[in-house]
Amino acid sequence: MPSYTAPTRDARFIINEMLDLAGYADLPGFEAASVDVTDAVINEGGKFCAEVLAPLNQSGDQEGCTRHEDGSVTTPKGFKEAFDQFREAGWGTLSQPEEFGGQGMPHVLGFAFEEFVSSANQAFGMYPGLTNGAVSALLAKGSQEQKEKYLPKMISNEWTGTMNLTEPHCGTDLGMIRTKAEPQADGSYSITGTKIFISAGEHDMAENIIHLVLAKTPGAPDSSKGISLFVVPKFLVGDDGSIGERNGVVCGSIEHKMGIHGNATCVLNYDGAKGWLVGEENKGLAAMFIMMNAARLGVGVQGLSQAEVAYQNAVAYALDRRQGRALTGPAEPEAQADPIFVHPDVRRMLMDAKAFTEGMRALCLWGALQVDLTHKAKTEEEREQADMLIGLLTPVIKGYGTDKGYEVATNMQQVFGGHGYIEEWGMSQFVRDARIAQIYEGTNGVQAMDLCGRKLAQKGGAAIQAFFKVVGDDIADAKGDNTLAPMAEALEKALGQQQAATMWFMQNAMQNPNHLGAGAHHYMHIMGIVTLGWMWLRMAKVAQAALAAGGEDKAFYEGKVATARYYMDRYLPDAGALRRKLEAGSESLMALDEDAFATAA
Amino acid sequence: MPSYTAPTRDARFIINEMLDLAGYADLPGFEAASVDVTDAVINEGGKFCAEVLAPLNQSGDQEGCTRHEDGSVTTPKGFKEAFDQFREAGWGTLSQPEEFGGQGMPHVLGFAFEEFVSSANQAFGMYPGLTNGAVSALLAKGSQEQKEKYLPKMISNEWTGTMNLTEPHCGTDLGMIRTKAEPQADGSYSITGTKIFISAGEHDMAENIIHLVLAKTPGAPDSSKGISLFVVPKFLVGDDGSIGERNGVVCGSIEHKMGIHGNATCVLNYDGAKGWLVGEENKGLAAMFIMMNAARLGVGVQGLSQAEVAYQNAVAYALDRRQGRALTGPAEPEAQADPIFVHPDVRRMLMDAKAFTEGMRALCLWGALQVDLTHKAKTEEEREQADMLIGLLTPVIKGYGTDKGYEVATNMQQVFGGHGYIEEWGMSQFVRDARIAQIYEGTNGVQAMDLCGRKLAQKGGAAIQAFFKVVGDDIADAKGDNTLAPMAEALEKALGQQQAATMWFMQNAMQNPNHLGAGAHHYMHIMGIVTLGWMWLRMAKVAQAALAAGGEDKAFYEGKVATARYYMDRYLPDAGALRRKLEAGSESLMALDEDAFATAA
Repeated sequence: MPSYTAPTRDARFIINEMLDLAGYADLPGFEAASVDVTDAVINEGGKFCAEVLAPLNQSGDQEGCTRHEDGSVTTPKGFKEAFDQFREAGWGTLSQPEEFGGQGMPHVLGFAFEEFVSSANQAFGMYPGLTNGAVSALLAKGSQEQKEKYLPKMISNEWTGTMNLTEPHCGTDLGMIRTKAEPQADGSYSITGTKIFISAGEHDMAENIIHLVLAKTPGAPDSSKGISLFVVPKFLVGDDGSIGERNGVVCGSIEHKMGIHGNATCVLNYDGAKGWLVGEENKGLAAMFIMMNAARLGVGVQGLSQAEVAYQNAVAYALDRRQGRALTGPAEPEAQADPIFVHPDVRRMLMDAKAFTEGMRALCLWGALQVDLTHKAKTEEEREQADMLIGLLTPVIKGYGTDKGYEVATNMQQVFGGHGYIEEWGMSQFVRDARIAQIYEGTNGVQAMDLCGRKLAQKGGAAIQAFFKVVGDDIADAKGDNTLAPMAEALEKALGQQQAATMWFMQNAMQNPNHLGAGAHHYMHIMGIVTLGWMWLRMAKVAQAALAAGGEDKAFYEGKVATARYYMDRYLPDAGALRRKLEAGSESLMALDEDAFATAA
Repeated sequence: MPSYTAPTRDARFIINEMLDLAGYADLPGFEAASVDVTDAVINEGGKFCAEVLAPLNQSGDQEGCTRHEDGSVTTPKGFKEAFDQFREAGWGTLSQPEEFGGQGMPHVLGFAFEEFVSSANQAFGMYPGLTNGAVSALLAKGSQEQKEKYLPKMISNEWTGTMNLTEPHCGTDLGMIRTKAEPQADGSYSITGTKIFISAGEHDMAENIIHLVLAKTPGAPDSSKGISLFVVPKFLVGDDGSIGERNGVVCGSIEHKMGIHGNATCVLNYDGAKGWLVGEENKGLAAMFIMMNAARLGVGVQGLSQAEVAYQNAVAYALDRRQGRALTGPAEPEAQADPIFVHPDVRRMLMDAKAFTEGMRALCLWGALQVDLTHKAKTEEEREQADMLIGLLTPVIKGYGTDKGYEVATNMQQVFGGHGYIEEWGMSQFVRDARIAQIYEGTNGVQAMDLCGRKLAQKGGAAIQAFFKVVGDDIADAKGDNTLAPMAEALEKALGQQQAATMWFMQNAMQNPNHLGAGAHHYMHIMGIVTLGWMWLRMAKVAQAALAAGGEDKAFYEGKVATARYYMDRYLPDAGALRRKLEAGSESLMALDEDAFATAA
């Protein structure tokens, strides 16, 4: 069975040393997040995930969820009890507002914990994960009454939440949804329609499920400007918070999927279910994007999480499995063969994984800090800067993070050779679970268009200019240090590739928007490469300073500097190739009509 | 359910027009392969695969194989009957020697058919596929008596064959095998040991299974120089060819795998099984490599095959599924949304797939021709040239072909969005089945080292120089044509990257072999990119000539030229980035010791 240890040392390095979370103690919510508290939360959270959730991961995959004739769903053995422990320990309350029973801690801590949960058991993590998405929409758009009615029990995880967007004929293009919401005399709406791919849509782990549902009111515009958001509880909730009668929403079936078997992916049939409008009519898309943006960051973390757990197991296997000899001569002559860890091609895969996971962890936690600063930074300018940066980088974290996460998980499976293909070893599950993250909450193609079609152009390019400035400043700063200078120069070149690609879009996409669409994927990957390079430069700087100061943990900091160097050697070169592909434009890409794609016999 | 149509038009284009198979009619075996015969074989073979094998692919995945208490194995419903049809139609005899009941046709035709089989049903295709590998070893190394006893029934597919290499503690490093072969008074050997991952190791589709088994005789050297090859039939075979008593080899269990569920991957327990030495004692490795090289080409074809069938289904979905609008304005204003085929990012994935599958098909069939020419070309010089080129390119076809095949299958699944993740649609199976091809018959890391550590250096680099010359000649030739010149120039640059990488290895790998190991994967991919580019240049030239000549099928030839252009735009740029990674050497890659890879809590 695969194993998992939460990478708490690395999380603490990023939070305490790179982000210096304690340095924000004068902001609301941050005052409680002292280094001691942070360390305790990270360490205890990591322990909980490794000890309670990870042991259920493989059995959950093998058993899956079962739907019964009455529409009820049983989750895999142990999930309910683990969720009880999760709830009792209050893990779901970490970064939620104190007003509704949360602990009000920075999102940075919530994100760090989310990674551990998802590495330990991604399918399990989606039950509280989706709840968080629903909570964020209600917090932003719900009425005070709705907040008071639903949020405390959702935040405490007595109840869970879902997001109901997709229908059989539409996912990305939500303007096409057909689910109807008919206004009733009592101010509620009668919701009727079919939603598919509803993660955590039905289960036996909580006493109620609060569905947030996109639907159309009568006469609403036939586009994304005509969709509204509704809260539809599985069981109606009395004014005193008591559980009332069963609402008209039933799980019609659950999907048989490639992975995340432990999560119930439901077809939900709404048949005159009672729902209440959240926010304004026809403004559902904006509310949906609040859930979606939170969810997208969470999905980016999933890309990291599967790469991380796969990496840990690949390292263990590479040190244990013996085949062949080191190219430079036997490393352990007394043994019949050397561990495969000595082979450069195995090391290449492990180093690729290490460079990705640690860089991606830094990016996710940096991103979580921006989420906090968007609301809590002292000045309007700081809040706006944080908002721009996280808006710009959300599709990169989701899109690049999950593309690479899947690639790394696949390579870690490769380290196992034939054993990687056998389900018993667990590596296949990491790959199969990682695969979904490239697809849901907006496919990575949608992320690329969000980045290039919306975010780049917003406010006259203010966000991308702000990004170029913060990265450029850190590069300029690092050039003064002998160790960091070569890395900074390499990163500067990659940043130059991104700037050139940005310029190419500006000069060409107006005249032909297909040029933008044809290069969006490449641009997202260039930006992912540059952004992780930036994180590595920041980590190397902190590590370099720690080494200069002497003190403990020398090997840890040396590892950071060496891995930063590896990242610059082996990741940055792709930026130039991607730019060349992007600059090829859409001509040869769109040249053929559909007949040319038919298989001719 | 997914669908499959054999791409017979493209196969015929490559065989008749690009390779001009009929032009070799003066060579033995080729005389029968007229254009008419070739077309008939391709068309009928494609039809058989699409009609008989493809309908069993998804059900075979869902049902898998079942092992019973007595060690017998039942294949999925319909497999046995389909194999009966396969046998009766004589599909397994296509490229086998007439002396043992084969049709003696060129391997080019056998390979073309193998692609169709594998696209239609990879798990099924492995039963005859492994048989071919075993046949090739017996043909090369078996005694006349062994050939006469086993080959006719294996070639007719009355019996199937297997390759028994891997043991629980060793796969790549075959010097470590423990299976013992004790000589007996009657000239046979008593074989005892455990073999794992034996594809098609036990099943109900044929009356006998001929295992080729690596084992050690008493006192054999404790290295790969001490292994011998044995033929071990499941049922002993009388001198008259009759089936005798059950031999001491039993299937102990079958593996639960990520994919290829329809193929029985067996643990085979040999307990004093009767076997006979094939070839010389202690020379088993050479015999094994004969099987292996044939098998590696077949695995490269699997990479192509899964990409192809996934591509076909993605095209159909992209034309059917409607979401959003073309960036340049509604393509079908009367419909509620445009087909997702209009979106450049979808088209990018489809074009990537088209460029890979057609280029890879050309490479595989060109490679099959080299296999034929190695034995049948008129002059020693031609035979040696073919032998060098196919030896050099076998690891590229296997390694690059399956890495890209998996990537393309994954991207085709991505075209389906959420539906791609649901097993019902079949896209997950293509990805799961494609995944094994990167692993078995030598992981792709082993392929990269075979290419860089063995093949590059052989005969003072004669093979790679021969490769540079044939590609360089075609580039020089194409520069004279206005349409082809820009493609030829782009390819020349990529070839220059490969030449520079080769030079870098020559200058650096002697002093530190880890530099070779650290760059081998990158080199293999550079060479894959260049080789497919070369194939595209050749295809574009033929297509260009056909267009100049006027005549039918204009759209087909225009598609070839446009896709060649796309390939040059979107595949070649990676060669430069890979060269830069390779030239980074092994310093940062090998910098960290094993402690640095431990997860610190």
